[in-house]
Amino acid sequence: MSDPRARDGNVVLLSGGMDSATCLALAVRTGAPTHALTIEYGQRHARELRAARALARRLGAHRHTELRLPLAALIDSSLTRRNRRLPTRGPRPGVIPSTYVPARNTILLSVALGYAESHRLGSIWIGANAIDYSGYPDCRPDFLRAFERLARLGTKAGRVGARRFRVRAPLLRLSKAEIVRLGERLGVPWALTWSCYAGGRRPCGRCDSCRLRARGFAAAGVEDPTVVRRTGG
Amino acid sequence: MSDPRARDGNVVLLSGGMDSATCLALAVRTGAPTHALTIEYGQRHARELRAARALARRLGAHRHTELRLPLAALIDSSLTRRNRRLPTRGPRPGVIPSTYVPARNTILLSVALGYAESHRLGSIWIGANAIDYSGYPDCRPDFLRAFERLARLGTKAGRVGARRFRVRAPLLRLSKAEIVRLGERLGVPWALTWSCYAGGRRPCGRCDSCRLRARGFAAAGVEDPTVVRRTGG
Repeated sequence: MSDPRARDGNVVLLSGGMDSATCLALAVRTGAPTHALTIEYGQRHARELRAARALARRLGAHRHTELRLPLAALIDSSLTRRNRRLPTRGPRPGVIPSTYVPARNTILLSVALGYAESHRLGSIWIGANAIDYSGYPDCRPDFLRAFERLARLGTKAGRVGARRFRVRAPLLRLSKAEIVRLGERLGVPWALTWSCYAGGRRPCGRCDSCRLRARGFAAAGVEDPTVVRRTGG
Repeated sequence: MSDPRARDGNVVLLSGGMDSATCLALAVRTGAPTHALTIEYGQRHARELRAARALARRLGAHRHTELRLPLAALIDSSLTRRNRRLPTRGPRPGVIPSTYVPARNTILLSVALGYAESHRLGSIWIGANAIDYSGYPDCRPDFLRAFERLARLGTKAGRVGARRFRVRAPLLRLSKAEIVRLGERLGVPWALTWSCYAGGRRPCGRCDSCRLRARGFAAAGVEDPTVVRRTGG
């Protein structure tokens, strides 16, 4: 899977969830140096960070960097505020839920851009998805193209034409079931991934993220190893 | 100085230098709620932070938030690495110096955007300057317009049309001398500002930032209270 656009290297935004894990597996397969970047921006729990660390190791990232951005105090979202309840009714069309983090992907991509320019990497990978997603505006194709334009104008490497930064969002138009099937082919270790917003010992099964994940695995006909099967009854 | 675009509130990126101090003074004069946001991204010294704190108080910001983003380990620049020498030969046309911080303004504006959306503020102020500047790509008008577009596409408030985020860079086309004259009219307390990259007890007088500042004050015919006048001889 050789891709000339990626030959000067990749940085992958790795949250620890199934989408970013699949992204990382794809990036590593390009054969170019692949760095994983995990940004903790005040999420509710550290469970995802442990998942990211294990995934970077298992999937063969050349380097894994963790960065803590203390945005929780600044930015209002039920994902960063412990006293706000998580929605449990499932995503609804046209409604942006309280788990929306203002400007989240703009901030994550900006930091990844700084990292990419510093390390001379041309491709920034993000597991954004515009199909089975929660209605977030910063997961849409026109937003990602606008960011590429910004990256060209706002960097030294972009201005002088030394490097064309690409935002690569290979999952953008895939359904969750298609992501599961793709991940299966790539050998993504689902057991190491973490999707639940709540961050208990086991996935809650009730938050939007757990619901999207469960639907995807069911539609793909794949068993999710992180879900405990209830027996008996 | 009433400006309808600003009536829903301002967030001002306040570094502690003379440009951002002048910006804050202008924003406060709009009469809209004005928040100051100081982002420490691994600069070489804490001197600027103390300046920002004093300026926010003196100029009457409604709120001042300080945020530490530990980017120094990620991002390569003589401004964030202590073992790299600062340039002292003065800015040269067409050359982007080693003090360039990759994607700096993209990161700062992104965090300010998250803050603005969370606090329902429409205007993001930045002291970017495209005249007497150090050749940074992320100080140019087309970059700032591209960021506004991104802000519309990448936020909930922008998408649903509830808020149009504006990047306000009122110093963009002013020379340093014009900034000094403007600041004089607004009563900016120059003695509280800090421009020097080196961060000693007194400004070094040799770095690019000190040189630009000195030229500006000289051309405006204003005495810089932070510079000790050498007597005798």
